[in-house]
Amino acid sequence: MGKTSITIKEIARQLNISKSTVSRALRDSSEISEHTRERVIELARRLNYSPNPIALSLLKNRTQTIGIIVPDIDNPFFSMAIGGVEDVAYSRGYHVMIYQSHDSYERECIDARHIAARRADGLIVSVASKSPDHSHFEELQESDIPVVFFDRISEQVQTHKVLVNDYEGAFEGTEHLIMQGCRRIAHISGPMGLNISRNRFNGYKDALAKHNLPLRDEWVVSADYSQSDGAERAYQLMALRERPDAIFAASDRIAIGVHWVLRQLGYRMPQDVALLGFSDLSISALLDPPLSSVAQPSFEMGRQAAELLLELIENKNTLDFETRVLKTNLVVRGSTLKIINSGDPASAEIL
Amino acid sequence: MGKTSITIKEIARQLNISKSTVSRALRDSSEISEHTRERVIELARRLNYSPNPIALSLLKNRTQTIGIIVPDIDNPFFSMAIGGVEDVAYSRGYHVMIYQSHDSYERECIDARHIAARRADGLIVSVASKSPDHSHFEELQESDIPVVFFDRISEQVQTHKVLVNDYEGAFEGTEHLIMQGCRRIAHISGPMGLNISRNRFNGYKDALAKHNLPLRDEWVVSADYSQSDGAERAYQLMALRERPDAIFAASDRIAIGVHWVLRQLGYRMPQDVALLGFSDLSISALLDPPLSSVAQPSFEMGRQAAELLLELIENKNTLDFETRVLKTNLVVRGSTLKIINSGDPASAEIL
Repeated sequence: MGKTSITIKEIARQLNISKSTVSRALRDSSEISEHTRERVIELARRLNYSPNPIALSLLKNRTQTIGIIVPDIDNPFFSMAIGGVEDVAYSRGYHVMIYQSHDSYERECIDARHIAARRADGLIVSVASKSPDHSHFEELQESDIPVVFFDRISEQVQTHKVLVNDYEGAFEGTEHLIMQGCRRIAHISGPMGLNISRNRFNGYKDALAKHNLPLRDEWVVSADYSQSDGAERAYQLMALRERPDAIFAASDRIAIGVHWVLRQLGYRMPQDVALLGFSDLSISALLDPPLSSVAQPSFEMGRQAAELLLELIENKNTLDFETRVLKTNLVVRGSTLKIINSGDPASAEIL
Repeated sequence: MGKTSITIKEIARQLNISKSTVSRALRDSSEISEHTRERVIELARRLNYSPNPIALSLLKNRTQTIGIIVPDIDNPFFSMAIGGVEDVAYSRGYHVMIYQSHDSYERECIDARHIAARRADGLIVSVASKSPDHSHFEELQESDIPVVFFDRISEQVQTHKVLVNDYEGAFEGTEHLIMQGCRRIAHISGPMGLNISRNRFNGYKDALAKHNLPLRDEWVVSADYSQSDGAERAYQLMALRERPDAIFAASDRIAIGVHWVLRQLGYRMPQDVALLGFSDLSISALLDPPLSSVAQPSFEMGRQAAELLLELIENKNTLDFETRVLKTNLVVRGSTLKIINSGDPASAEIL
C-alpha cells in the first residue's frame, strides 16, 4: 500500500494541485471539476503505477474481484490450481471468490450469472463434465467480463486457455506400461464430453497401436472422475474372462478407487495388475504400493490462468487468444515398476 | 419457483388488485403508489410464503448470497463441510461464495471485509489458527451481516456456533489406545490458540489421568494441522530416548504425515506404535494399515451452520445464540487394533 501515497503525491506534484484534490478526483467526487478529474485520471493511467486496489477499482470501475468455478473443490487437483490462481491474484490486489459447479450444467449457469451479477472483473473456469453448451460463458464475455479456461476447457468459447499435453502424457504413460511387459492394458477414461478425457484416451490408443497391441472394446470403460466410479469399473474389468494385466486410469481419483478394489480382491500390484493414474495427487505417493502417475503442474496451471485473465481485465484490447500447453511428467512408483532399468523414458522419476 | 405465482396471486386476491400491480410493487416500481406498495409488502411479509429468490431479494434488500471462509479448501474436512453448507443454501435459493484464509489473520480480515463489501447476506466461518482477534467479524455483525462459526470457533464473538464434542472424542480415543495395551501415549496437538486443539488435548490428558498413566512433557508436541508438520513431529517423537508406543494425532492430516514417517522408518503399526487420528477423512481408510480415527460429521456440521445462519438472515430478531455440539464416533481400524474383543466402547466400528 506504500505505493499509493507515492502515486497520489507524484500526480499532485506533476499537475501542481493538492494531494487531496487528486484523491478526491480519483474517488470521482462531485466537488472536483470535470476538467481536473480528467487530467488526474489521464495522468494516473499514464504513470501506470500500481495504486491500491480500492483506488484502482474506483479509477477503472472495477471490483478487484475474480471468480473461479471448478467442478469440485474436494478434488486436490482443483484445490491446488485454485492456490495458483490466488497466488497471482492476491499479489496483484485481487480478491478470489470460489464456486463449485458439482459437475452440474444448471449449477454452472447459476454460478456464472451470479458472478456477473456480483460484478466480478473476470472468471476462471474448469467446465462441468455434464455441460452440453457453454453459452453462459459467452454471455459473460458480452457483458465485458473476460473468461479464461484451464484443464477442462470449452472449445466453443474463444478465449485464453491453459492445458497440459494430455495426449502426450497418456501416450508416454501407456508406453511405460508396455515397457514393463504389460500386454493387456485396460483404460478407464473420464466422461468423453471433456477434452481431457478424449485426449488421454487417444494417447492410450495410439501408444497401443504403435506397439501393435490390441485395443479391445471390453478393456475401455468410462467413469466419472471419482473414487467410487473407479472402484466400480475395477470390479467390472477384473470380472472379465480375459483380465487386463494393467489399468491406466484417466485420473488419480479413479486410480485410488481401483487401488482399493485390487487390494480387497487380493491382486498384487504390479505383479498381477500394474496401475497408473493421471494428475499425481499428493496422497498417491502414500498408498501401498505407491501409485505411479502422470503428474500435472496444477498450481502452475492456476497461476498461468490467473495471469492471462488479469491481462484481459487490465488490457481489454487483446484479440489474439492463446492456448498454453504445459508439460506433464511421468512419475514411476511401485504400482507399475516391475523392471528396473527397463529403458523407461529419461523423465521417469523413481521414488 | 411454483410458489411465486401462488404468492403473487394470493396477495392480489386478498388486496383485490391485479397480479401485475403486486409484482411491480414487489419490484419497488415507481409506477405504484407508496400506499399500495406498503400494503403489498406488509401482506407479503405476513403471508410468510417462500417467494422466489429474486423476488425475496428485492423484497428484503437481500442478495441471496452467503459467504464462507475456511482456512483451507484442500483439507477434506472443510470441503465436506462446505458441501453441507451448499446443500442447505442451494435448496433455499442462496448462492455460496467460498474464500480461503490460508490460516492467515490478514487474509481473513480482507476476506471478511470483501464479503461485506460484496453485500453477502451472511457469513459462515471456521477461523484461521493465527488470528489473534476476531473483531473483523464483529464489524460484519454491526453492519447487520450475521456470522455463524463451525469447528474452529471464536469465543469472542457472540453468535450461533456448531461444534463436535472434541473433548469426549479425544477422551474416548485415548482410552481406546489404553485398552489396546498402550502405556506411553504421545499427543501431537494442533495450534493451542484454537478451541478444538485445547479440547482435544484436555480429553487426552484427562484419559491418561483416569488410568494413572504419565503425561510426559516430551510426549506432547504441537503442530499445524498439516501433513508436513505431522511428519516432522513424528521424527521428533521417535527420536526420543523413551519412545512412545502410541501417537494420538489431533487430526488425520497430521496422522497421515506420521503414518508416512513410521513406515519410512520401518515401524510396524500397531505392534510398535499405534496411531490414531481425528476427523476420519475418506482417504484414511485407504492407508496401509488403515488409520483409526475419531470421526466428525463434517457434512452435517456444514448443514447445521447453514441452517442457523439462514435463521439469522431471515428472522433477524434472534437474541439467544445457540452452541450446537454434534457427536464424534470412534472408528477403529488396523493402525490401533491390537486386541480383538478388548472391551472397546460399543460405538467402535471395526473395518
